[in-house]
Amino acid sequence: MSYNVVLVEPEIPQNTGNIARTCAVTNTKLHIVKPMGFEITDAKLKRAGLDYWHFLGVKYYENIDEFFEINKGGRFFFSTTKAVNNYCDVKFCDNDFILFGKETKGLDEALLKANKEHCIRIPMIDEARSLNLSNSVAVVLYEALRQQNFEGLKEKGALTKFEW
Amino acid sequence: MSYNVVLVEPEIPQNTGNIARTCAVTNTKLHIVKPMGFEITDAKLKRAGLDYWHFLGVKYYENIDEFFEINKGGRFFFSTTKAVNNYCDVKFCDNDFILFGKETKGLDEALLKANKEHCIRIPMIDEARSLNLSNSVAVVLYEALRQQNFEGLKEKGALTKFEW
Repeated sequence: MSYNVVLVEPEIPQNTGNIARTCAVTNTKLHIVKPMGFEITDAKLKRAGLDYWHFLGVKYYENIDEFFEINKGGRFFFSTTKAVNNYCDVKFCDNDFILFGKETKGLDEALLKANKEHCIRIPMIDEARSLNLSNSVAVVLYEALRQQNFEGLKEKGALTKFEW
Repeated sequence: MSYNVVLVEPEIPQNTGNIARTCAVTNTKLHIVKPMGFEITDAKLKRAGLDYWHFLGVKYYENIDEFFEINKGGRFFFSTTKAVNNYCDVKFCDNDFILFGKETKGLDEALLKANKEHCIRIPMIDEARSLNLSNSVAVVLYEALRQQNFEGLKEKGALTKFEW
């Protein structure tokens, strides 16, 4: 029981590093669609998340078409401010892919329009800008995990209660 | 209907900036207990969140004792890896305070031990380190908002469905 987070053309290394960290602690697969706005060796990315990189099966794709070709048959959700559905009103299933667009522009509008029913949004006040990308990933991913009672993390000790 | 996020001695300006942004888009009050590991004028903090700063009623406290003195009568939750309760198994109420410790050490152990029943943790794989602080805040805060059906954000347009 696990999910897939897909970053489409991420621009800011600290965000990708933090997202890698979130994926590592939740047994989530990370997929990155190029081009990225930084080198994978970027020192800032290392500082933000490289400790976790080895936990992850990060998969890279040359472009979005390659991503969909390789993962055809998958179930995809598209995280965007331009969605009808609230992220917590959809029911996530094992192995779902949750896509997030680049920090400055989000996901491509044609992609969103072609997948209206699978677009999800995080409620936020409309006069403000959107959440930071790594925060958005954490919010949606943890809602998906919560819906499954964190089943996929049970064996890995994530539900062990701390006792002093 | 709103919540209070409390950062106790935050160390990393980008995190505080991102948390300010999360608070801004959710109509959440931000409280910061000094000392902070940076100046409030730090350029990195501005870059990460100053656009949002003006939305917020940020309150500063000289120390944790002052915080509890000024907010006595409040209901407090303590976010920590050292907790019995899963963050989504507690029921959040209007005006709750949710405390988060410094990045390197978390909240003071004496404080946690004295408030065991109100300590909450985010499930994560135990061989990995913890989530980034701003991600932790986003996850817990959005769960609290979800429990209240985002009531406090309704009038501010946060639940308006996007239509192409």
